[in-house]
Amino acid sequence: MADKGLFLINTGNGKGKSTAAFGLALRAAGQELRVAVIQFIKGKWQTGEIKAIEKHLTDSIDIFVTGTGFTWEQEIAAVKDAALAGWKLACDKITSDQYDLIVLDELTYLINMRFISEAEVLTVLTSRPNGQHVVITGRNASDGLIQAADLVTEMKEIKHPFHRGGSAVKGIEF
Amino acid sequence: MADKGLFLINTGNGKGKSTAAFGLALRAAGQELRVAVIQFIKGKWQTGEIKAIEKHLTDSIDIFVTGTGFTWEQEIAAVKDAALAGWKLACDKITSDQYDLIVLDELTYLINMRFISEAEVLTVLTSRPNGQHVVITGRNASDGLIQAADLVTEMKEIKHPFHRGGSAVKGIEF
Repeated sequence: MADKGLFLINTGNGKGKSTAAFGLALRAAGQELRVAVIQFIKGKWQTGEIKAIEKHLTDSIDIFVTGTGFTWEQEIAAVKDAALAGWKLACDKITSDQYDLIVLDELTYLINMRFISEAEVLTVLTSRPNGQHVVITGRNASDGLIQAADLVTEMKEIKHPFHRGGSAVKGIEF
Repeated sequence: MADKGLFLINTGNGKGKSTAAFGLALRAAGQELRVAVIQFIKGKWQTGEIKAIEKHLTDSIDIFVTGTGFTWEQEIAAVKDAALAGWKLACDKITSDQYDLIVLDELTYLINMRFISEAEVLTVLTSRPNGQHVVITGRNASDGLIQAADLVTEMKEIKHPFHRGGSAVKGIEF
């Protein structure tokens, strides 16, 4: 057990789940850990964190953006296929033993949508290489994930988000 | 009001308050915002996030570590003097209009220790340059701060931190 890396979860309905995971990726990179971030939700805009990593941190952090954007026009089968392809990639990165920290950003929605089972995720995490840390982010982390984690933080919205006529603030919200 | 930058608070007893603020600094840097991070608590170890920023992101993010480390041997007057010097530096950076995002990391403890007043902080924030975003992190954010903020997130510990014989995990905990 002493060789086992840590398993962290950032969940809850508030802001900061993914942002804290990116902060952790930055911290780990600074301590010479090899980091992979796998995103399971493709956003509408290219985020600042991805731009910054691609510009300054490619030596330390590998980013993989998977999945489809969510649109109502899209067939659920296509969304599921893209999600499963993302999960397969994540499994490859976990088992490859190339990384000291793996961030599975928004993975919870793959379980919550029943695209993959909690049991499958736990099996992959349990047999991951020694010393590898994993962070899962996303709303409604399932009970089995929480049971298995070393540290779980809930990001809770205390005050409602600002509303600025519907336009997101560049550099802060994306 | 439309020109006013956003004021965010990360508070609560859980992990991720500062880490999310660093993630936001990374995001903002990626979107070409000019970022300053002022830390009010000097940790025992040099953190990975500071190493990473000093190595890769000095073009975009300025870091200022202020305050003393907390030790029981230290005179409270010396701790207070160092904290006030940190706050003075923060005020200079805020009013200088050199930055689009300013992170005041662990500022709440200066108010909670009564080194500075909440009213003074609110006065400085209210008169800050247009378009400047501010993030304050730390436990027990006071009511007046929460009132004034656009977005408040509580990082809540759902599951107790891992214990690994007392040694912090490099790259994850610092």
